[in-house]
Amino acid sequence: MVPGGQKLNLSGDRYTVDYLLTVDEKKARPLAEHICYEQTVEFPGDLIPDGEIKNQIVGRLESLERIDKKRSVAKISFAVEITGFEFTQFLNNLFGNISILPGIRIINIDIPESLLSISKGPRFGKQGITNILGVNRPLICSALKPLGMSAEQLAEQAYQFAAGGIDLIKDDHGICNQAFSPFKERVVKCSEAVKKANQKYGTKTLYLPNISGPAKMIRDWASIAKESGVGGLLISPGLIGIDTMKSIAEDDLINLPIMAHPAFNGTYVVSESNGISHGVLYGLLMRLAGADMTVFPNFGGRFSFSRDECLDIASGCRRPLQGIKPTLPAPGGGMTTDRLPEIIDTYGKDFVLLIGGGLHRHSDNIKRNTENFREMVDKI
Amino acid sequence: MVPGGQKLNLSGDRYTVDYLLTVDEKKARPLAEHICYEQTVEFPGDLIPDGEIKNQIVGRLESLERIDKKRSVAKISFAVEITGFEFTQFLNNLFGNISILPGIRIINIDIPESLLSISKGPRFGKQGITNILGVNRPLICSALKPLGMSAEQLAEQAYQFAAGGIDLIKDDHGICNQAFSPFKERVVKCSEAVKKANQKYGTKTLYLPNISGPAKMIRDWASIAKESGVGGLLISPGLIGIDTMKSIAEDDLINLPIMAHPAFNGTYVVSESNGISHGVLYGLLMRLAGADMTVFPNFGGRFSFSRDECLDIASGCRRPLQGIKPTLPAPGGGMTTDRLPEIIDTYGKDFVLLIGGGLHRHSDNIKRNTENFREMVDKI
Repeated sequence: MVPGGQKLNLSGDRYTVDYLLTVDEKKARPLAEHICYEQTVEFPGDLIPDGEIKNQIVGRLESLERIDKKRSVAKISFAVEITGFEFTQFLNNLFGNISILPGIRIINIDIPESLLSISKGPRFGKQGITNILGVNRPLICSALKPLGMSAEQLAEQAYQFAAGGIDLIKDDHGICNQAFSPFKERVVKCSEAVKKANQKYGTKTLYLPNISGPAKMIRDWASIAKESGVGGLLISPGLIGIDTMKSIAEDDLINLPIMAHPAFNGTYVVSESNGISHGVLYGLLMRLAGADMTVFPNFGGRFSFSRDECLDIASGCRRPLQGIKPTLPAPGGGMTTDRLPEIIDTYGKDFVLLIGGGLHRHSDNIKRNTENFREMVDKI
Repeated sequence: MVPGGQKLNLSGDRYTVDYLLTVDEKKARPLAEHICYEQTVEFPGDLIPDGEIKNQIVGRLESLERIDKKRSVAKISFAVEITGFEFTQFLNNLFGNISILPGIRIINIDIPESLLSISKGPRFGKQGITNILGVNRPLICSALKPLGMSAEQLAEQAYQFAAGGIDLIKDDHGICNQAFSPFKERVVKCSEAVKKANQKYGTKTLYLPNISGPAKMIRDWASIAKESGVGGLLISPGLIGIDTMKSIAEDDLINLPIMAHPAFNGTYVVSESNGISHGVLYGLLMRLAGADMTVFPNFGGRFSFSRDECLDIASGCRRPLQGIKPTLPAPGGGMTTDRLPEIIDTYGKDFVLLIGGGLHRHSDNIKRNTENFREMVDKI
């Protein structure tokens, strides 16, 4: 028995997590009760004396609802104070140890205002980005690729995209600091190319280099990018840590729009009985971690997301959250021009349309291909 | 068609990844070929001209072996240069975009010496830790808990563990910087308590505080811990980023043993058809990222790992890797004293035995319980 009788000065505010439990009916309640302990005290209940730790720190099973023989939803609430009001610990309380248990998937989180204070949310958000670009239509984004091209070649590609009137150009997320195209050289050259095209053609294209490199370089790379006059940053939080992305997003000296990329963290969503739902991971959590735009694979492309899963992400990006701006969904992957109407029907006007190979397909004239695509979007 | 004819000056060195593909037989080859492009150029093959990008940068399917109707193993090799010799980009090349595709699991990686240069491996490793502690038997580690206790209470618990002759004491990974026990106060008090007990009882206990906090605090917290005289650091790379852990492990001014905790990254292993195998994630990758000890749930405990999966981790920790020291496996979770023989039969002598609630169970006298357990281990 550990000592009891602590005074913890808790506010009574709690956040609530909906866990989808994919286990036999009989096992749902024991598992839900287990989560309450595993995600907090990680200690046998019978060795904790009555008191605030047992009654308030241990998670509280608010409800357990049966969906069918194999699935139930447990709503479990937690005292906001267990997060220490830090995003990393919040993630740990949501899913730390239980990420190792099969059959548990986070499908929703309700967060009271007191806990939302741990996030500044997107700095620019939907409105901020569209204000910079001065448009009120879906935004178009393409990627500099393929890996193996030199900084000069990528800069020439960037020039063509910008000349054609694209809104956003990102590095391909696999292009970082390889010898064929070292980070600084590429960022300076691509940034200059985009500025030149913007001046010549009156376009407003933003260039977003990929800064998802070594932990000790990320802040410096963000500064180098900033000094080079880039329009935003591409970050893969699955590679560098979600809170590392958040720290760059919240950095007043960097002060740039952030585009989050799903590299390496798809595993959280791909199994329907484990992990974290599409809407929570790519919508809500990316938004709380400061992503102004969140990249994910569109339905019907070369990945496996369904239309509903994509809508779930859009909902996580847009649902009302006290003081937190909306994030722009950025679906992509196998996008072709003929799918435009269906895609706009799904996302409305407020989203970023990622198009990759599609802009290289019609001809070698990237400027012309971009202009044509931009015209199609302008007509919407 | 993008421009061709680049001279990339590649060494010819390649690393090879074994991907377990859980798809219908007929789909295995197309999927394997898709991985070769998706993880490198992310560009349609027909738009890349013949040349080094197509022949060397695009992944190369070395073999495809059928296991049964539903499973095949694709061995795919990649030019070491695509990693830019950075660990984050190496992770991205292994599993960036394809983490979003169901049915792909990494089960092995073979890395040539030229690429191993991106890792210093564990600074201390098995030999370094056992040298510090001056013992040649399984090490015993317990955790300060539960969450909600004050710094004083946790320090008193630490004192008792150390007095009882435990080898390692870690913070519970859910204890970080909460108001009940703020980081600095806890670390200073626990560190002092352990020093006092070591002096009084002639023990050599090491205290490892949890530094898995906000990105902007981690380096400072590591320094505070170092100044307080701690014996190592507990890090959850799933929360702060694998390369962030690596940067702390490789920091010569910190120079402390690192214990990696699996919080938040269990999702990679729990589904047998997705993610990353136990041995690769908790063995090989943690080791390359500088973990001297790697925590994982033992078989037969409250998690679901099998004995074979645990042995796979131990193998990833120990297999020969040019210039990289072995990592100590640290199985835990639901450990009880009566399982000791079975566990030693599995791991041999070189591992860390995590025991939590078990040391509180017999009586409230933690010192006595620890002494008794230590005696059992000493007899081995």
